Amino acid sequence: MASKQILQELKPSQFLSRPPPSLSLRFFSVSIAVDNRNRNRNHNHRLRHSSSSSSKLYNPVFACRTSRDSHETDSSRKDDDSPVHGLSEKIVGVLGGGQLGRMLCQAASKMAIKVIVLDPSENCPASALAYDHMVGSFDDSATVEEFAKRCGVLTVETEHVDVATLEKLEQQGIDCEPKASTIRIIQDKYLQKVHFSRHGIPLPEFMEINNLEETKRAGELYGYPLMIKGKRLAYDGRGNAVAKSEGELSSAIDGVHMVIVTWDWRILGGFGRGLYVEKWAPFIKELAVIVARGRDNSILCYPVVETIHKENICHIVKAPADVPWRIRKLANDVAYKAISSLEGAGVFAVELFLTRDGQILLNEVAPRPHNSGHHTIESCYTSQFEQHLRAVVGLPLGDPSMKTPAAIMYNLLGEDEGEPGFKVAHQLIARALEIPGATAHWYDKPEMRRQRKMGHITLVGPSVGVLEARRKSMLREEGYENRNEVAPRVGIVMGSDSDLPVMKDAARILNMFGVSTEVRIVSAHRTPELMYSYASSARERGIQVIIAGAGGAAHLPGMVASLTPLPVIGVPVRASTLDGIDSLLSIVQMPRGVPVATVAVNNATNAGLLAVRMLGVGDADLLARMNQYQEDTRDYVLTKAEKLRKDGWEAYLNQ
Amino acid sequence: MASKQILQELKPSQFLSRPPPSLSLRFFSVSIAVDNRNRNRNHNHRLRHSSSSSSKLYNPVFACRTSRDSHETDSSRKDDDSPVHGLSEKIVGVLGGGQLGRMLCQAASKMAIKVIVLDPSENCPASALAYDHMVGSFDDSATVEEFAKRCGVLTVETEHVDVATLEKLEQQGIDCEPKASTIRIIQDKYLQKVHFSRHGIPLPEFMEINNLEETKRAGELYGYPLMIKGKRLAYDGRGNAVAKSEGELSSAIDGVHMVIVTWDWRILGGFGRGLYVEKWAPFIKELAVIVARGRDNSILCYPVVETIHKENICHIVKAPADVPWRIRKLANDVAYKAISSLEGAGVFAVELFLTRDGQILLNEVAPRPHNSGHHTIESCYTSQFEQHLRAVVGLPLGDPSMKTPAAIMYNLLGEDEGEPGFKVAHQLIARALEIPGATAHWYDKPEMRRQRKMGHITLVGPSVGVLEARRKSMLREEGYENRNEVAPRVGIVMGSDSDLPVMKDAARILNMFGVSTEVRIVSAHRTPELMYSYASSARERGIQVIIAGAGGAAHLPGMVASLTPLPVIGVPVRASTLDGIDSLLSIVQMPRGVPVATVAVNNATNAGLLAVRMLGVGDADLLARMNQYQEDTRDYVLTKAEKLRKDGWEAYLNQ
Repeated sequence: MASKQILQELKPSQFLSRPPPSLSLRFFSVSIAVDNRNRNRNHNHRLRHSSSSSSKLYNPVFACRTSRDSHETDSSRKDDDSPVHGLSEKIVGVLGGGQLGRMLCQAASKMAIKVIVLDPSENCPASALAYDHMVGSFDDSATVEEFAKRCGVLTVETEHVDVATLEKLEQQGIDCEPKASTIRIIQDKYLQKVHFSRHGIPLPEFMEINNLEETKRAGELYGYPLMIKGKRLAYDGRGNAVAKSEGELSSAIDGVHMVIVTWDWRILGGFGRGLYVEKWAPFIKELAVIVARGRDNSILCYPVVETIHKENICHIVKAPADVPWRIRKLANDVAYKAISSLEGAGVFAVELFLTRDGQILLNEVAPRPHNSGHHTIESCYTSQFEQHLRAVVGLPLGDPSMKTPAAIMYNLLGEDEGEPGFKVAHQLIARALEIPGATAHWYDKPEMRRQRKMGHITLVGPSVGVLEARRKSMLREEGYENRNEVAPRVGIVMGSDSDLPVMKDAARILNMFGVSTEVRIVSAHRTPELMYSYASSARERGIQVIIAGAGGAAHLPGMVASLTPLPVIGVPVRASTLDGIDSLLSIVQMPRGVPVATVAVNNATNAGLLAVRMLGVGDADLLARMNQYQEDTRDYVLTKAEKLRKDGWEAYLNQ
Repeated sequence: MASKQILQELKPSQFLSRPPPSLSLRFFSVSIAVDNRNRNRNHNHRLRHSSSSSSKLYNPVFACRTSRDSHETDSSRKDDDSPVHGLSEKIVGVLGGGQLGRMLCQAASKMAIKVIVLDPSENCPASALAYDHMVGSFDDSATVEEFAKRCGVLTVETEHVDVATLEKLEQQGIDCEPKASTIRIIQDKYLQKVHFSRHGIPLPEFMEINNLEETKRAGELYGYPLMIKGKRLAYDGRGNAVAKSEGELSSAIDGVHMVIVTWDWRILGGFGRGLYVEKWAPFIKELAVIVARGRDNSILCYPVVETIHKENICHIVKAPADVPWRIRKLANDVAYKAISSLEGAGVFAVELFLTRDGQILLNEVAPRPHNSGHHTIESCYTSQFEQHLRAVVGLPLGDPSMKTPAAIMYNLLGEDEGEPGFKVAHQLIARALEIPGATAHWYDKPEMRRQRKMGHITLVGPSVGVLEARRKSMLREEGYENRNEVAPRVGIVMGSDSDLPVMKDAARILNMFGVSTEVRIVSAHRTPELMYSYASSARERGIQVIIAGAGGAAHLPGMVASLTPLPVIGVPVRASTLDGIDSLLSIVQMPRGVPVATVAVNNATNAGLLAVRMLGVGDADLLARMNQYQEDTRDYVLTKAEKLRKDGWEAYLNQ
């Protein structure tokens, strides 16, 4: 069967498919730790009696010597008695101290790994959490060189860095992860496209343009709308422009109409900065895959997610993406192949297009943690930030799979400048804090600006459908204002209300176990459309188990089971004739491929109990309660047994 | 039914049972934020050209004014333009900067809430992560007073603080959470016992002792072994001593033999420090419940956990505790009641004894985050640390329930002094990093000491049973060395090998979906003991679904279902006579209370598919793959349909 081959393959994220990593953990001497202790003492003294003594402790020369030591002796040294206590002796230097750097610091603090950041802004988000923050430009050669001397390993939170310097540093033996070669390829989007097409990665057709004529020819070749992109310094859609017609094209290039088409044509900067065109990809969804590569070249993929953009900026991420498994598999393979073609350790983000005809095309790659992976902090066994640190310092990669069934990430983008913007964000966060499974992240950026990423909210829970409802109520979207009802976990359906006197027992049991339930009349023969829409939408609405009862020629359970991947429990209801054997056989004797979990005739109680046991597969509390139920039932029978023993059978019967 | 009443009650941790919290989030003016920006600039300057300018920025007077402002104007002020960007304008002051303070800082950084700590050790674990660290004793009145002035709210990570000062500060209007009154009650264990017994909380009998005679009388009254406890400054079992006989008693009290009985009799310090005795509680398990209370007095309980101690120090925590639901319910109620009797917001830990006769007795309470709640960082929707912060600053409490079915926390206790101790810890962490779902926490304590809490490892996964196996392999325990096999999720059992030709189809399907499976012969009639032990142990071994096949008088599925809370799928195997109808009816027609999910006669394929659907309840990936399987099956049928249409029925038949 076609599915077999797909299903048998292990997903790349399979935990065991990894080669044994070369582990280098050492509790180890780095004198900067002393420096840090001194910094604290001295800083606290100052707090206590405003003395400003021992500024020499901040002597940069000292600082540099210190960390050059730690670098030169990366491999092994044990002759020092002041150990670094973290999971790695390597000091991780990050070029850039934005929210990505901040979240790297948060992950590092668990492992007590020291992270230092280089960022021009004194109040950059990572500043307060980094072991040290060097104020300076990661695009300035001298600064980067000085910074690099203080790191055991150098990595990035942005690809827009001075790559020439990184290459020079690598020649001097500085350890950059990922490699400078990778960053060079990625920071030039045109070079990136060339590289990936050479490696047989599917992507939209593209070509370089140097003047209006070439652009027009491209327009004739690819048709319109036509994507015009700047090669460099482009992110969050900046540097992309769409020309809907040849007319717009020319006006775009003389930079007049383009200002309207895209609000930052300035960055595109005309042919001088280098432009290329891309054939418009008729995508129906944008997907993304975070891929991690260890220093041992082991590669693991995170679950495929759907990304939803707003004005070209990531706005919402849904994990896992609601696309057929075949598509997830394909997206995984493309992402895996793309990252295999690059050099160096760390996590990478692969942005993809899913086209109408089921193709996966590569959009672009980021050589760092990415907005599409923020949900992993709460939803995966290993967050993308811990993973990036594990990778660059040379620890084994962690399990990237999800520990919750679903997650939704919502970006807090500045909706206004200054205080009004803070107000809007704060009102949203206040509502988020009321939502079960919601976590609010605030990046502590000094200024609020429109469209700026100020923080994000992650929702985790039983299904993307349920989380979508929670997100909409958080945003007070139409029809979701102040919605507090619990989404039903079990759907009880029956062919007619005449089955209700039997089916009610299932509802009673579920009610007794505190499981939210909905009860509906859905007939296979009299309301086939309703039956179809109910069954095929149940999963997305968060239903986890369906109980279907029917009598006579009981087709409802089987039909429902054929329209949903959820487990379906069938209750044969005794009809006027044949004592229910007809219902039983028409429910239980399903063809291969479509199972119905059948219980005894009229025994909806057992259907309810079976549903609770099924939910127990993902709910330890329910399993424990089922255990309790069984013990109580036993005790109940034992008391009757004891009564019979004491009273004797005659007295027992006469009561 | 007895169970009904228990099951119908909502667990205290039920998310919706909370009164609407009084929310106070405000992006708000606190000049210390400016102070912080300046500190960064100034610090980074220093890094770059060793200038030590602007130490005045650390002027404590300035700092104090600053935060007194922020305190006095807690309620509302909007006339300042430098906003605090976090989820709360309150600066949280923590007395103590150990690992609990450190993990509070980690939680605070997500929310950008500013935490400052008071701790005597310059390199205390919280020092590197706190917004500020004031070096000083939290037992010194003047220091605490100065510190308090800088906080919007004052809280603790230890109960051994100068409570008189806190009471004085409260009179001055300083906001302490929890209240000083609560800390006074808790820091004196005798007072604590008196308080809780007054409030009708069940606990072991106890009495104050002032001399040897009273102690002997207590011994006669309570019998031996007898617990002798110091009233104050006792934690991690320090200050507790066990006298096995009256003989040991006297020698204990003249402090000779006691040194052997407990290694820190010094802290017990004889009658001078105040002693009391406790009747020995014959417990079979120690349980703990983290309870959170908001400023609005809403109370939520975390799942009941089992704590395992080693030399009186918390060593392993299992969540949820493997005890009957009735016991969990009881533990929850006792914990809820205990905390309701105290004043103030925050999280509290309630340590409990489970006695042989199914009683729950209160051991002691901690007014702060607790070792038994560390697992919540990875396993619950809201960690105990985020919860404590939400509580003390007045944000709504988060959902305390578990987002993973199970968690095990393992304390990294110093096993040796200095470098050798680090080595042992590091080897263990290295193994932990290879385990799926394992997270290593290192507290970055400057010195390694025997029995000292240096860090912890949390394992999360599908069941406590599976995690126990992983923990043992991590510790290289007997029989678990280098164990890498995946624990089976589905158990396929059959009455005899003659059923195998049918049952193999279930194994094939599960194999195709990549679900780990075990296949066993277990006969209800020929090996009843084996059947009993298999069924009753399946859940703890991590089995999530059982498929049982049998022919003729097919009792196996029903018997297995009666011995486990797991969902059981029954496959009627056609016997030589009656065409399988006998098997079908003896499997499906189960009495009320014991459901078996029955499939068609000989249709083990559907049993396998049904098992996959059931696992899909807690595994979104499997659900998506089932969806794919259904699509592929449809396509497969459609191709045949198309072939028939094209070739015509005769040609079709003749192929």
